[in-house]
Amino acid sequence: MMQFVVQSQRTFMATRLSLRLMRSSMTQRASFSFSAMKWEGGVSMVQGASRGIGLEFVKQLLENNEKGHVVATCRNPRGATGLHDLKNKFVERLSILPLDVTVESTIEESAKSIREKYGSLNLLVNASGILSLPDALQPETTLTKVQKSSLMLAYEVNAVGPILVIKHMWPLLKIGGGSGTERDVAIVANISARVGSIGDNRLGGWHSYRASKSALNQLNKTISVEFARKKDPVISILLHPGTVDTDLSRPFQRNVPEGKLFTKEYSVQKLLHIIDNVKSSDNGKFFAWDGQEIPW
Amino acid sequence: MMQFVVQSQRTFMATRLSLRLMRSSMTQRASFSFSAMKWEGGVSMVQGASRGIGLEFVKQLLENNEKGHVVATCRNPRGATGLHDLKNKFVERLSILPLDVTVESTIEESAKSIREKYGSLNLLVNASGILSLPDALQPETTLTKVQKSSLMLAYEVNAVGPILVIKHMWPLLKIGGGSGTERDVAIVANISARVGSIGDNRLGGWHSYRASKSALNQLNKTISVEFARKKDPVISILLHPGTVDTDLSRPFQRNVPEGKLFTKEYSVQKLLHIIDNVKSSDNGKFFAWDGQEIPW
Ligand SMILES: NC(=O)c1ccc[n+]([C@@H]2O[C@H](COP(=O)([O-])OP(=O)(O)OC[C@H]3O[C@@H](n4cnc5c(N)ncnc54)[C@H](OP(=O)(O)O)[C@@H]3O)[C@@H](O)[C@H]2O)c1
Ligand SMILES: NC(=O)c1ccc[n+]([C@@H]2O[C@H](COP(=O)([O-])OP(=O)(O)OC[C@H]3O[C@@H](n4cnc5c(N)ncnc54)[C@H](OP(=O)(O)O)[C@@H]3O)[C@@H](O)[C@H]2O)c1
Repeated sequence: MMQFVVQSQRTFMATRLSLRLMRSSMTQRASFSFSAMKWEGGVSMVQGASRGIGLEFVKQLLENNEKGHVVATCRNPRGATGLHDLKNKFVERLSILPLDVTVESTIEESAKSIREKYGSLNLLVNASGILSLPDALQPETTLTKVQKSSLMLAYEVNAVGPILVIKHMWPLLKIGGGSGTERDVAIVANISARVGSIGDNRLGGWHSYRASKSALNQLNKTISVEFARKKDPVISILLHPGTVDTDLSRPFQRNVPEGKLFTKEYSVQKLLHIIDNVKSSDNGKFFAWDGQEIPW
Repeated sequence: MMQFVVQSQRTFMATRLSLRLMRSSMTQRASFSFSAMKWEGGVSMVQGASRGIGLEFVKQLLENNEKGHVVATCRNPRGATGLHDLKNKFVERLSILPLDVTVESTIEESAKSIREKYGSLNLLVNASGILSLPDALQPETTLTKVQKSSLMLAYEVNAVGPILVIKHMWPLLKIGGGSGTERDVAIVANISARVGSIGDNRLGGWHSYRASKSALNQLNKTISVEFARKKDPVISILLHPGTVDTDLSRPFQRNVPEGKLFTKEYSVQKLLHIIDNVKSSDNGKFFAWDGQEIPW
């Protein structure tokens, strides 16, 4: 049965690709067939790659797959020293592009660059996110402290941002799914957070962050339904990385129980294990670092 | 047991009220004891009362309880002809105030007016909401049509708006809970929508509206946890009204199965039945018109 699904998806892709080729100009045709053959190890995009979990994804993706190509995007490539170090080591297999999820034109520019250079995407990791920002966003401890500007900002960055990235990368993911790697689908992995779970919310607080992640979860579910209905070779999932030792969690690590604060190396290893083993039937789901599903 | 809870909440209220009275000036003391005695039938606020479900709430609240007072808020009181008709009939028991959920100062002004006139609130119904707006918001049929501006607007009106209203009415609800009516708690009822359920999302589409309502659900859950932890005499719930024949649903009524399109009279009757029978242990929950809980 699974065999059949894979088969029909491949046929579907092939049909669509040839229709596309028939419609496209000579130049476009050349670049399509070129890219379809070229990226054996697959092309992964990590969005929000300057620091923390995103940067670690770039590192492990490059280290784990010696044929894999990675596109790392961040707001300020110049200042992203962690990415520079990786670029020095992996030269040809790493591209760095500017992308701020709050500026849609930078997402469109990235999609254009990726289309021109690679022509397809096999994996998109949306890793960007904010929990606190000096003078603009503080995790709220009570309703009294809830500010409209904080609610709107967290939503713009944590929910709207990733969805716009998927919107613009969707055509590339559809081409990547089923071609270039052993996988039969391209994967979108959105880094959400357990505190975005409504059912699991027992502590309250953090209104802006929680609401933005719940909305991200709903948006992910919504697009997963469309991907499935259209039989696109793309699935989209949500991942909770655990509490990870990064700039984001640093101010809140005091209350983390012994052994529950993960290194980013450990967390990303676990998340990549999930991504590597994900099935088409997991489309739309929300997994914690240990593979357990998280309630909505 | 329930008796005990009621008792202890009453004692708690009394203690807090007297502390408050001890701290407050002579003028404030006078107005507090004045209002505590005055509103036997209770004071209800309906936010988003110009049309549709909100207007029907105002009508039924006034008709069902001959001692009840209602504060109806809307963006443009002058144009709210339905409210004018009710004002002509119920004169003293209905107040109409201007409130646009996207303009926080109008929420603060309303809270100030209600504090001065009534001093407390026993029920707050957040009924405002948008699904489509000419040139600004259309329920999306595909990810390709998702626009940042629509996502942000739906969030601002449907999620941020109601939460800011609760924030500013919270002090009045704390006073209203346990005093003035037979109830031992004040109730906040937020009109959400079944399509805001992530677990129940089988059709996809309507990204902006769905995400905004999921976020509202999470915000409601978050504040309910705080109300419970602080032993406030306030509970906050979510209600799905069914598919109701109003301006909001009109463009989308074609596919509603026979018998599944409710009149606003029927829907509000059902929702008021839920509100009338809600228990403290229902704090934070999400109910459909028929009393069934909706999954997150
Ligand atoms: N750490 C945890 O314990 C934890 C737990 C649950 C979920 N998460 C989630 O995991 C993800 C990664 O978090 P982290 O811990 O790695 O945080 P982090 O170290 O603070 O990194 C956040 C990343 O997001 C980027 N970013 C912020 N705003 C952006 C924007 N407008 N456009 C593009 N990129 C932007 C930052 O780029 P700049 O360098 O330009 O600021 C940075 O690369 C987030 O979605 C977070 O919510 C983390
Ligand atoms: N009808 C349904 O089938 C259905 C189903 C599920 C959920 N709901 C929910 O039920 C609630 C009521 O909807 P309805 O069907 O009664 O819709 P409606 O007839 O279109 O009424 C919407 C109300 O919201 C008000 N509103 C819009 N923007 C506002 C703002 N910025 N500030 C204050 N008020 C604002 C409108 O005021 P103006 O007159 O000033 O525009 C109007 O009173 C909404 O939350 C909706 O999402 C409805």
